[in-house]
Amino acid sequence: MTMEELGTAVAHEDEEWDDLDPDEQLRRMRHSAAHVLAEAVLEMFPEAKYAIGPPIENGFYYDFELPRALTPDDLAKLERRMKRTVKRNVPIEGEWIPKAQAEEIFKDQPYKLELIADLEGDLVGHFTHAKFEDLCRGGHTERTGQLGAFKLTHSAGAYWRGDEKNQMLQRVYGVLFPTQEELDAYLEAREEAERRDHRRVGRELDLFSTHEEYGPGLIYWHPKGGRTRIEIENAWREEHFDAGYEIVYTPHVGRAELWETSGHLGFYAENMYSPMDIDGNDYYLKPMNCPFHIQIYKNAKRSYRELPMKLAEMGTVYRYERSGVLHGMMRVRGFTQDDAHIICTPDQVEDEIVSVVEFVLHLLRLFGFEEFEASLSTRPEKSVGHQEQWDQAEDALRRALDRADLEYGVDEGGGAFYGPKIDVHLKDTLGRKWQCSTIQFDFSLPERFGMTYVGEDGQDHQPYMVHRALLGSMERFFGIMVEHYGGAFPLWLAPVQAVVIPIADRHIEYAQHVQRELKQKGFRVDVDTSGERMGNMIRRAQLQKVPYMLVIGDREQEAEQVAVRDRSGDDLGAMPIFQLVDRLIDERDTRSYQPPV
Amino acid sequence: MTMEELGTAVAHEDEEWDDLDPDEQLRRMRHSAAHVLAEAVLEMFPEAKYAIGPPIENGFYYDFELPRALTPDDLAKLERRMKRTVKRNVPIEGEWIPKAQAEEIFKDQPYKLELIADLEGDLVGHFTHAKFEDLCRGGHTERTGQLGAFKLTHSAGAYWRGDEKNQMLQRVYGVLFPTQEELDAYLEAREEAERRDHRRVGRELDLFSTHEEYGPGLIYWHPKGGRTRIEIENAWREEHFDAGYEIVYTPHVGRAELWETSGHLGFYAENMYSPMDIDGNDYYLKPMNCPFHIQIYKNAKRSYRELPMKLAEMGTVYRYERSGVLHGMMRVRGFTQDDAHIICTPDQVEDEIVSVVEFVLHLLRLFGFEEFEASLSTRPEKSVGHQEQWDQAEDALRRALDRADLEYGVDEGGGAFYGPKIDVHLKDTLGRKWQCSTIQFDFSLPERFGMTYVGEDGQDHQPYMVHRALLGSMERFFGIMVEHYGGAFPLWLAPVQAVVIPIADRHIEYAQHVQRELKQKGFRVDVDTSGERMGNMIRRAQLQKVPYMLVIGDREQEAEQVAVRDRSGDDLGAMPIFQLVDRLIDERDTRSYQPPV
Repeated sequence: MTMEELGTAVAHEDEEWDDLDPDEQLRRMRHSAAHVLAEAVLEMFPEAKYAIGPPIENGFYYDFELPRALTPDDLAKLERRMKRTVKRNVPIEGEWIPKAQAEEIFKDQPYKLELIADLEGDLVGHFTHAKFEDLCRGGHTERTGQLGAFKLTHSAGAYWRGDEKNQMLQRVYGVLFPTQEELDAYLEAREEAERRDHRRVGRELDLFSTHEEYGPGLIYWHPKGGRTRIEIENAWREEHFDAGYEIVYTPHVGRAELWETSGHLGFYAENMYSPMDIDGNDYYLKPMNCPFHIQIYKNAKRSYRELPMKLAEMGTVYRYERSGVLHGMMRVRGFTQDDAHIICTPDQVEDEIVSVVEFVLHLLRLFGFEEFEASLSTRPEKSVGHQEQWDQAEDALRRALDRADLEYGVDEGGGAFYGPKIDVHLKDTLGRKWQCSTIQFDFSLPERFGMTYVGEDGQDHQPYMVHRALLGSMERFFGIMVEHYGGAFPLWLAPVQAVVIPIADRHIEYAQHVQRELKQKGFRVDVDTSGERMGNMIRRAQLQKVPYMLVIGDREQEAEQVAVRDRSGDDLGAMPIFQLVDRLIDERDTRSYQPPV
Repeated sequence: MTMEELGTAVAHEDEEWDDLDPDEQLRRMRHSAAHVLAEAVLEMFPEAKYAIGPPIENGFYYDFELPRALTPDDLAKLERRMKRTVKRNVPIEGEWIPKAQAEEIFKDQPYKLELIADLEGDLVGHFTHAKFEDLCRGGHTERTGQLGAFKLTHSAGAYWRGDEKNQMLQRVYGVLFPTQEELDAYLEAREEAERRDHRRVGRELDLFSTHEEYGPGLIYWHPKGGRTRIEIENAWREEHFDAGYEIVYTPHVGRAELWETSGHLGFYAENMYSPMDIDGNDYYLKPMNCPFHIQIYKNAKRSYRELPMKLAEMGTVYRYERSGVLHGMMRVRGFTQDDAHIICTPDQVEDEIVSVVEFVLHLLRLFGFEEFEASLSTRPEKSVGHQEQWDQAEDALRRALDRADLEYGVDEGGGAFYGPKIDVHLKDTLGRKWQCSTIQFDFSLPERFGMTYVGEDGQDHQPYMVHRALLGSMERFFGIMVEHYGGAFPLWLAPVQAVVIPIADRHIEYAQHVQRELKQKGFRVDVDTSGERMGNMIRRAQLQKVPYMLVIGDREQEAEQVAVRDRSGDDLGAMPIFQLVDRLIDERDTRSYQPPV
């Protein structure tokens, strides 16, 4: 930081509080709370070394070197101390001081000394409230009484300056909002998100696992996750056939020559795994399906009459991701793309892109999503092709977005190396946005692979190509679905659709009869033969998010009925089996959307 | 060859022809035909060098070094010359001669000289008929008139002594049977097999391709192959769910540690590809799915109540095969196994194996196969486990085969390295046997991976494991299906199930209406809008083995009917659309077996 920048920052402190925009006010509240936190920590641990404490999204943190690990009890104590400082409402003051003076003030604080040494210029910012002193470029509230509503949430290890060769410090996190209502709403949403975390729900409902010791970022789909995935894939295939796609299957490995021609070894090698040697040739695990689909296209002489040709595949690809960024099913090293390539004439490309955009929305709605946004990503630094081609392609995508009437932002430089793209983001129940679908223009591969078709004029022409994945990857999409529904999938997607609960052993036979009746109609139905108390059996089914519990006692058995409850706890009353079957068939076959419970 | 052996061979010639068993007679006929062929070649090409000419299955061959490549015309001429020799009916005679004498006789024949030099002892066999002389250990007819019915089929390159560092010779092949009827029957069956060759049919019907330049032995499934594969997979999944299996999905790569524990790196490494490096760890492409399924089992503490647990996967594996043995879809380097692992208590294992054997037959019958044989494969040299375990396991498989009442042979030493196995072979339309299904006992992996379950006694026990693949691999099974049906799949599996053929342009609209009606019922239907003559359109659909052709002219359009033909050329008459729909739904949904045309 230069002296000028520091000067500006401190000078900024002079503005009137009420003139600041609310975002800046909030930023300052969070920053000041970090100071107040550091004050409390130094009071509790006089030997503490304090490092840095910035405002962040939703709150703040501060890093400390402490004599022992903090406990949740410590956090509660620190929070109480902070609240006392708020109550005292002391002024927060800043001033310029010479570096030498700062070095004297922070002579026992090695992290501060390191920061002072790194700062350019002769003066540094010095902020105080009550007896607390900090090295800081400013951005604070006027007094400690203006901090709003906050809560210390947790502490975690963090390396000094983010470098794992440095000392590990303890980072204390807090969240802060202007009012208690906003803080409560945020904490509730966060708790809900944690409750719905697909890793947690995946474990509770036995949907999938990862096995770090045999390779992180690789997903093992368990039977229940598999059931839902099969339903998703079946629906996907059906919709794709209806939309005029054909489905192919291609290998997971290809020789280096393929990836050289495609440009992947030139432009994408850092995302690919090292080669395997087969008979003296290098083979690579596929990071994308495109070069294989192109071989199928090129396997015969093509005519314009065959275009657009739409080749789709549930293609499992492998890409390198640093282990630090891997996250459950959301960010993995191996995933199954719902990939397709549309090969068409230049005249057809805009219509095709419009129809893909419409198809995306149709498909995502089918799975219960209702709100969408798009973004247009333009030429990245590392890319093939001429600027003119990129301009044309970006224009075509823009026109397609306008025609499809979908709002979009522009992500400059975010395109693939072979062309610009449209990404579609969905919003889940918690209002979070997820990028799933991508529609990518490609003027590069048709040229690199020498793809042609015979036009109406009898001459060879080069086709255009559109890459698209609508769900994105099965892993990520499934993870999003798990969080969107909190594991309570709509009936047609639920791994187990109903559990029959016989109240006593004498009802088991009739329970199994009900199970058979439903199975015959294609339903996935269990009978709970644990012999436990009804309440336990119902609770277990509810925790497993099973859509329907079919309770059977003497009365139901006699009347050839079942007492139906849903997973939200609603009692739907007793009904004859045929009526239940009709109801479930209707709900399943219309892929009815059940609001998450 | 020692002198004694040679002596025996030549002496054998003294037996009376009529006393020989028919197999030995046929072997001698084929061997003598090779001599007669060599005679004809030496007459046509006096400068020819002749090498060796043994009897083989179905016929004989002889290798020659010739001044030019043989043409089909040459073969016809040679065959005529051979027939003249047959007609002349000259005696075939053998005697012992000293090596020195033989070296003089064959002084211009380098291959014979090499053979003489390699023979042990002082005497060599010398056989003659008319002016033809050969170095030979005997096994001939008495006269050239006894050769039966033969035909020269083709010639191909063959290295001297099978070593590619040696001279490339021309090998002339002939087929020979005792009677003309037998020869004709053989040639017809062979022609039929060639017509049905899945590589040829695959090309003609656009089902799949391979792309040597990007990796041999890797299959690209085209849209039409994909349609049929999806139907096969759907039926497979349905049947497996009905049989109590659960379906999982697992990664295609795993760290070296996994394959070390499983024993694959110790016992199966030559079939695996070289490792990839990810973050300094070795990862291998999976040659089998088992270690992954075991991780899913081990992901929770298991109780005997959960057993048998049956985990199935359409798992794509990669195994090394020498490029020379690769063959279309039948022998490949990457294939999708219809794999499953049954984890059970020792008490359950025999019943489970019996039920798998029954399930195999049920599933193969579903796809139109009717005749089966089994084999039991025992402990191979390279294997894990104690002899006692192997004996117990082999006994269990034997008892299961007896109970399932399936005939079987024993393949000594043919088991997997981790346990003995049952293979089931099916017979196709041409009577050929194919090994598809395998059921493998495994007492090894449960131990290596420390798998346990809590028994009724509350103690930990080690489960047994059965590996099984019923179709074997999708690639191979599909290849067999293509040859079995000659590409004329039953309705439910046909990529295109019907083609609507409008006789004139004015019928196209109604044709499309018929298409829509059928599509609504889930049928795959094309309309031929080429505008060609009806005969051409019908012929094209027949060549594509489309089950039904729906012809529409003025009369059909007026009566709201279609004129239905099947691919065998049978005219099924005109019928209203609803009647056609009912008929097709019935044929499809019963997975009705249509005898191949």
